[in-house]
Amino acid sequence: MSDDAILEVPERSGTVDIDSAITGAQFERLVREHMGESSRFSFRVEELRRGHCRIRLHFDKAQLRPGGTIAGPVMFTLADTVLYAMTMSVAGLEPLAVTTDLTLHFLRKPGPVDLIGVGRLLKASGRRLMGDVAIFSDGEERPVAHATGAYALPPRSATESS
Amino acid sequence: MSDDAILEVPERSGTVDIDSAITGAQFERLVREHMGESSRFSFRVEELRRGHCRIRLHFDKAQLRPGGTIAGPVMFTLADTVLYAMTMSVAGLEPLAVTTDLTLHFLRKPGPVDLIGVGRLLKASGRRLMGDVAIFSDGEERPVAHATGAYALPPRSATESS
Amino acid sequence: MSDDAILEVPERSGTVDIDSAITGAQFERLVREHMGESSRFSFRVEELRRGHCRIRLHFDKAQLRPGGTIAGPVMFTLADTVLYAMTMSVAGLEPLAVTTDLTLHFLRKPGPVDLIGVGRLLKASGRRLMGDVAIFSDGEERPVAHATGAYALPPRSATESS
Amino acid sequence: MSDDAILEVPERSGTVDIDSAITGAQFERLVREHMGESSRFSFRVEELRRGHCRIRLHFDKAQLRPGGTIAGPVMFTLADTVLYAMTMSVAGLEPLAVTTDLTLHFLRKPGPVDLIGVGRLLKASGRRLMGDVAIFSDGEERPVAHATGAYALPPRSATESS
Repeated sequence: MSDDAILEVPERSGTVDIDSAITGAQFERLVREHMGESSRFSFRVEELRRGHCRIRLHFDKAQLRPGGTIAGPVMFTLADTVLYAMTMSVAGLEPLAVTTDLTLHFLRKPGPVDLIGVGRLLKASGRRLMGDVAIFSDGEERPVAHATGAYALPPRSATESS
Repeated sequence: MSDDAILEVPERSGTVDIDSAITGAQFERLVREHMGESSRFSFRVEELRRGHCRIRLHFDKAQLRPGGTIAGPVMFTLADTVLYAMTMSVAGLEPLAVTTDLTLHFLRKPGPVDLIGVGRLLKASGRRLMGDVAIFSDGEERPVAHATGAYALPPRSATESS
Repeated sequence: MSDDAILEVPERSGTVDIDSAITGAQFERLVREHMGESSRFSFRVEELRRGHCRIRLHFDKAQLRPGGTIAGPVMFTLADTVLYAMTMSVAGLEPLAVTTDLTLHFLRKPGPVDLIGVGRLLKASGRRLMGDVAIFSDGEERPVAHATGAYALPPRSATESS
Repeated sequence: MSDDAILEVPERSGTVDIDSAITGAQFERLVREHMGESSRFSFRVEELRRGHCRIRLHFDKAQLRPGGTIAGPVMFTLADTVLYAMTMSVAGLEPLAVTTDLTLHFLRKPGPVDLIGVGRLLKASGRRLMGDVAIFSDGEERPVAHATGAYALPPRSATESS
């Protein structure tokens, strides 16, 4: 059985920052300045549209685990970062938005190259947003992992007073 | 915040049974003949291609729960049925394939109309297949639920001897 | 490799309705009167304490799927019902509480006997509750399925006006 | 609504390495020697029994995210590490065992202290193991996160030849 009819990595649309409440550059800066752990990784927002996001995570040898594949927590970090960016593409700068749940399926062993996370929001009404993220190895057609997850925005009063 | 940039229900491609290891009609017959619980629901395979499937679940008042929305188990049944059909679109008739895990997110309250499940496989190599399913209310643009899940094929010897 | 060190079915505590905001009998009545789909199944609340619940789902031949095991949607229904009862054990009668997400892992094939769902809440503050449910086949020590999931209570104003 | 009936952090049993196929010290050494990313964190196996594991992750300022709470990927890493240790408590040294899926629910914001992950296997037969992990902040009674996930052992031939 082969994988010949499976979801393939989408083309880059070439559009950037269209209709998004923040720009990719703003998001990169926010993560660099505020995040502890995640900021160790070097990444670039390749696309950010309202409800859509594509992020490239640059490969680093520290990401490897036994067997020469990229470790699970690295893929979690990428998926979570894509969801965080999509949340802000709709809600604006909300650094205190938090993940409420995240489900990851690991599909193939990613080799020692960049990872690309491609996400879409599935719900963005109210204070809870939900989306999914397909993760690809650069140069490969088939996803190496898939995530679904939700973000909650802080209560409005908390936002207003912060 | 509005939902104006969210995944929309895809157009029907009009193609049916393309490149699939079984036809939609074969799948409908298998479920009708073999499944207990699920077969109470009336459904139609609107598309079945290798790794892709679209199923319409006909509305029935017995599907409602308090508040007038369709009950969660009904959406679970539809998601699971789409994954089952996609599994066979690649693996052929494998009635003993089993769900290993399924994650459902409920996004909006579906009104008393048909549900449409649109699925795609994300992995189909080996004996384990994984995919996702977006569920829509007929006539609505935004998904009411989203599922990811995996199926395992029975060990080959079991298949050969059955 | 054997399963000799795995979670076993807990003893019934013998205590019922302790510290719970509703009684098991109240919950059974609510489901019987209001739920469409779920009420087809016959079940009994064997324990309901604040944040804990044990429900027995009576076996019925209609629950079977190919291979003679109980179908996935039946286990989903049981898990969801246990979460619903635990929600009300803390929040009181809230028939409009809704599932926001549910993750099911299927572990063993349940034979044609009663299923027992044993749940515990993991979070019950705010308007969102989260818990897990282990599902056992009557007479077997090891779980046949495991679920985690969350319920959201309706906004307070909606509750007050209903 | 208060959290007064929720799962509390279990007492340490005081037993270590009972009936486990590897010792906690062996596991700590394996992670230190082989894992890239994960080994940046300092952790201690406080208990390792067959199908049960308790690991303490030492707090480090690099783990924080905006708002002063510990970042999601850190909790993912702890949950995944507990599942990895429990897998080896049953299967022996299997560094090439891989996560197939992991679902995380975030329940409370963990303050700047050690995290404690307490896991139990729910299935350990065959080549696929499944378990759950409750994560606590040191000194707090209620869990801050909950994970369920599965590990797959490499095919036997791969193991034998490695």
